[in-house]
Amino acid sequence: MLVLKKGGTALEAVMIATATLEDSPLTNAGYGSTLTWDGKVECDASVMDGRTLQYGAVGAVSGVKNPVKLAHHLCFKQNSPTLALGRVPPCLLVGSGARKWAKRAGIQTAPSHSLVSERLNIEAFSWRQSEKPFSKNRPQYTQPGLHPELLVFSSLVQNEISALDLLTTEIVSPLDTVGAVSMDSEGNVASACSSGGIALKHSGRVGQAGVYGCGCWAENTDGQSAIAACTSGCGEYLVKTCLAREVSQDIKVASCCITGLHNTMTNKFVNSPFLRNVPLDNRLGGVIVLKCSQDESTGEFLWAHSTSTMMVSYMSIADRKPKISLSMLPKGIAPGSQVIVEAVPFKRRLATMDCQTINYVDLTL
Amino acid sequence: MLVLKKGGTALEAVMIATATLEDSPLTNAGYGSTLTWDGKVECDASVMDGRTLQYGAVGAVSGVKNPVKLAHHLCFKQNSPTLALGRVPPCLLVGSGARKWAKRAGIQTAPSHSLVSERLNIEAFSWRQSEKPFSKNRPQYTQPGLHPELLVFSSLVQNEISALDLLTTEIVSPLDTVGAVSMDSEGNVASACSSGGIALKHSGRVGQAGVYGCGCWAENTDGQSAIAACTSGCGEYLVKTCLAREVSQDIKVASCCITGLHNTMTNKFVNSPFLRNVPLDNRLGGVIVLKCSQDESTGEFLWAHSTSTMMVSYMSIADRKPKISLSMLPKGIAPGSQVIVEAVPFKRRLATMDCQTINYVDLTL
Repeated sequence: MLVLKKGGTALEAVMIATATLEDSPLTNAGYGSTLTWDGKVECDASVMDGRTLQYGAVGAVSGVKNPVKLAHHLCFKQNSPTLALGRVPPCLLVGSGARKWAKRAGIQTAPSHSLVSERLNIEAFSWRQSEKPFSKNRPQYTQPGLHPELLVFSSLVQNEISALDLLTTEIVSPLDTVGAVSMDSEGNVASACSSGGIALKHSGRVGQAGVYGCGCWAENTDGQSAIAACTSGCGEYLVKTCLAREVSQDIKVASCCITGLHNTMTNKFVNSPFLRNVPLDNRLGGVIVLKCSQDESTGEFLWAHSTSTMMVSYMSIADRKPKISLSMLPKGIAPGSQVIVEAVPFKRRLATMDCQTINYVDLTL
Repeated sequence: MLVLKKGGTALEAVMIATATLEDSPLTNAGYGSTLTWDGKVECDASVMDGRTLQYGAVGAVSGVKNPVKLAHHLCFKQNSPTLALGRVPPCLLVGSGARKWAKRAGIQTAPSHSLVSERLNIEAFSWRQSEKPFSKNRPQYTQPGLHPELLVFSSLVQNEISALDLLTTEIVSPLDTVGAVSMDSEGNVASACSSGGIALKHSGRVGQAGVYGCGCWAENTDGQSAIAACTSGCGEYLVKTCLAREVSQDIKVASCCITGLHNTMTNKFVNSPFLRNVPLDNRLGGVIVLKCSQDESTGEFLWAHSTSTMMVSYMSIADRKPKISLSMLPKGIAPGSQVIVEAVPFKRRLATMDCQTINYVDLTL
């Protein structure tokens, strides 16, 4: 918010907001991310600028303190002229190559283990102690003597529930991507997201936060409306449904945003033909959306999810502190089967640099 | 084609066809791919199954003999039930993690340097001899004593022009992704693509061949039409325009496929707002498309490109050998400014396992 108050762009605002969330050990992004099967932190992050329609992303990167800053750098580099040999600056960098780029670009790198929070490190150590080599016939993700559920769920309990002061909650799924959407005084929008991925994922796995059109989207070039969206949930399902882009394209032309978002989340996510072999209770996803009509200077911030809960936080520069909402599916509705949509309206005051910044933490408890 | 003649699926056919192209030193995929700035082969590949709508991809992977086989394996694994902790098998694996997965899955790995063809190895050696460490103020892709254009262009000249017996051609761009679309006797379609990426790319860069919706698309589930598409060209631009998916969605409902494809390639690629800061002569892309109406059992194989040339090859099981077409933009039309579309009709004879397999090599000479 400080960025916007100082006249910064929406792109800078989402980058800084997401980097702040990455630095918190309470979120599954950057420092304190859940660990891969090999006990490492590997992060995905992306940034999209609605003004230029440029995009930058990183996937499965280790040892970069703020993956979203690297994604932002790649997004910014897209505006550079074409390089020799007809090559353009890369919009997606992964693995060790992404870390090399960060080093050369002056983006803070760190020893890979320094991104593992102390508690996760201790747990990972005790887990690695019990590890035995893979055998050919053993199921891929289960090992004798290992109870990964305990590792992951205890992490969530200790971290996020204490943060929310929710002492007794049934944990459904270990997903907690972070991200932000923002609009600046010029009416430009941007979106960013960052994730440590699914706990105990295979090394090298990239989820929606590193895939174009799936983790974040921002577009404000048609002169009529500006829209930004950011998704969270099971990465593979958000990829297969191209959710950030689909939501943005539908809401851009919807006469009623709430109905439009409900329809899109229901028809193109929960009931998507691309997820037809996915058990209903696994179709877990959430999205935050910022839409503003350019001519009327009015807009809406919306959120929707099929998870039990999703946490959102939002404020404008007129606010002293952010509003926080722990959105929950109504009792009796099974997660993955239906979608809840909520929204708050806002009004842009162009002359006074009115704006909106929304950060969210999806806890999917 | 042998796969289809033996009653194999479209998915198997595109995988085998693309793997064969990867094994050829004449293509920029698998063995003999162009080298990264660090002198390594790093490959992207993806596969999509129209019947199940499943997708698998790898990005920036080294030391896997046939990246498309690993992508196929990941696509196949998507049909597995959900794993413990609510995780699903990954649909995108990158870097060293992808190679680890290949090793465990029994997919042939190889020392990274063995994928460098002898000629490229010699050139890379002489190039590395002249390499000096990066200094902070030196432009990113230029180094004193190095003339990368010579390296890349001479590779293309020796490889692909000798293959085509084209002795004098002005080379415009070093792009040559390979891929295949196919329809089997059941009327199911599939698509695959594979690429070594842009020559002298930064390590870790992933192009359209590793990004969902951008390199390949296949869909035959609505009971009315089956469609498969595969793209080639500048990876970043094909990613930003989600070209394979956009083409498929438009052509699926187009009354005239040729007009539809021309419109999509013109409006959503060459004139796309997502490429507005890209010089016109760099908007180089190509696509192959297979569309079949399920009820009429007729279909079309189409190709379109804004590059100077694109090479396509196609055959049905009724053919003894493939037809080859070196498609060229009409003289006087600048590459990147307009699109040429060509098509051949075909008829499925359901009872006799009629089918269509198309491999293509985009040389973009």
